[in-house]
Amino acid sequence: MQHPLDQALALTPLAEHRFAGQTSPAYANMVGPFGGTTCAVLLQAALLHPQRLGDPIALTVNFASPVADGAFEIEARPVRTNRSTQHWVIQLLQGDGVAATATAVFAQRRPTWSAAEARPPKGMPPADSLPRASLKGRPPWVHQFDMRFAEGGMPDPFDGQEQPHARSRLWVRDEPPRPLDFAALASLCDSFFPRVYLRRRKVAPIGTVSLTTYFHADAAQLAAQGERHLLATARALAYRNGYFDQTAEVWSQQGELLASTHQMVYFRE
Amino acid sequence: MQHPLDQALALTPLAEHRFAGQTSPAYANMVGPFGGTTCAVLLQAALLHPQRLGDPIALTVNFASPVADGAFEIEARPVRTNRSTQHWVIQLLQGDGVAATATAVFAQRRPTWSAAEARPPKGMPPADSLPRASLKGRPPWVHQFDMRFAEGGMPDPFDGQEQPHARSRLWVRDEPPRPLDFAALASLCDSFFPRVYLRRRKVAPIGTVSLTTYFHADAAQLAAQGERHLLATARALAYRNGYFDQTAEVWSQQGELLASTHQMVYFRE
Repeated sequence: MQHPLDQALALTPLAEHRFAGQTSPAYANMVGPFGGTTCAVLLQAALLHPQRLGDPIALTVNFASPVADGAFEIEARPVRTNRSTQHWVIQLLQGDGVAATATAVFAQRRPTWSAAEARPPKGMPPADSLPRASLKGRPPWVHQFDMRFAEGGMPDPFDGQEQPHARSRLWVRDEPPRPLDFAALASLCDSFFPRVYLRRRKVAPIGTVSLTTYFHADAAQLAAQGERHLLATARALAYRNGYFDQTAEVWSQQGELLASTHQMVYFRE
Repeated sequence: MQHPLDQALALTPLAEHRFAGQTSPAYANMVGPFGGTTCAVLLQAALLHPQRLGDPIALTVNFASPVADGAFEIEARPVRTNRSTQHWVIQLLQGDGVAATATAVFAQRRPTWSAAEARPPKGMPPADSLPRASLKGRPPWVHQFDMRFAEGGMPDPFDGQEQPHARSRLWVRDEPPRPLDFAALASLCDSFFPRVYLRRRKVAPIGTVSLTTYFHADAAQLAAQGERHLLATARALAYRNGYFDQTAEVWSQQGELLASTHQMVYFRE
């Protein structure tokens, strides 16, 4: 049986730079699909493209309008291919409109001097020592992840008590488990609950307007991670006049940084 | 006399979504122009566009190939305009090729509950108590900034002694001074020296492949900053197999976060 994420990533080639896909009920959000699967399927179009060179380095997705449940088309165009890098312009189209724009940079990586500078959080309890986060009242997409919070889970209850920060430390993986690859990592990078919910312990309308993910790992490092939980940290820098940012880092079980991700999110009071 | 940045930002409308510009010798880098002015002029095309709605929230620029000194054209297209947000796809064209791709999100912001979460670095000496960073041997664009480092300036000498981190804390402003606006802030967000130079105390070929800037401030907050130095911090998370990331935050004199910026950079050993 196909994994729900692979169902959500299924694309049919229509023309040289064009693919047909459809949203997946398994990844439904409160309105329309989970943004993470939208990011993943936009990246998947480049990953599947016959002119693809190398692996993803950077992906930016701008959510231009709500994606409607149902069919969509993706235009994925390699606008520049160099010796070792490739630049993509990608759009998700529904009806006559652009629902999401994206750009991606791919590259063939070669072994070089390498070094970590950021470190994974210390003292994180093992994943299996923490309970899986509650799914009660959560939209379908949350059920597709196994999240185990050491800090900064979803407030329960939402009591409106403003907190001094909105930091999270957690273990997270696809549920059911699925081997890690670039598309799954792109999806997971949008799975961090809106920081304003944690900060204000209050639910309000929000929507990501722009999300960027940097892939620090190559395909072999992702494959080595397999189906195990990833370690992640998330936080915000500032909330101001309708927009806040959030940043997350995603680490392997061995403490290697696999991805870092940033987004700007609209919020209403 | 026009400020060098305004010369670099000068665009002539050619058609509905098309502008002509040219690189500025004042902002020349070792090869081609400084990437920050490329970011700024791509944003400027949207800022000048008659269909512009609101102010920039997010800008992503992908450097697809070296920009050649001389003339270029910019295509800036508002692909989706909603009630309070607008989505842009922008390209910098030279000859038959795409030299840079970009996307931007603009928005009309309204006053809401706001809060800082990150704090500016503590104990930063006043700008006028620190010497201006040396310009000796630096390319022209560095002369267009006044940078004063409390930590993490350019290594002198480049002695190849690897450092445990590549963090910087500095004051920075345009030189000559110029009132802050979105284009100037976009340019300044690419002014942080490549982290790999600091980490390895060694110069090697590098090139930013993708840069994202989030604008936390509105036009009024930028105007209030005027021509004064901005406080900035920069750091890296990881260097691996030909690519590293860097992150910077830019603060007003009053300690408000004005912008946060992230990039992925190619490096050779």
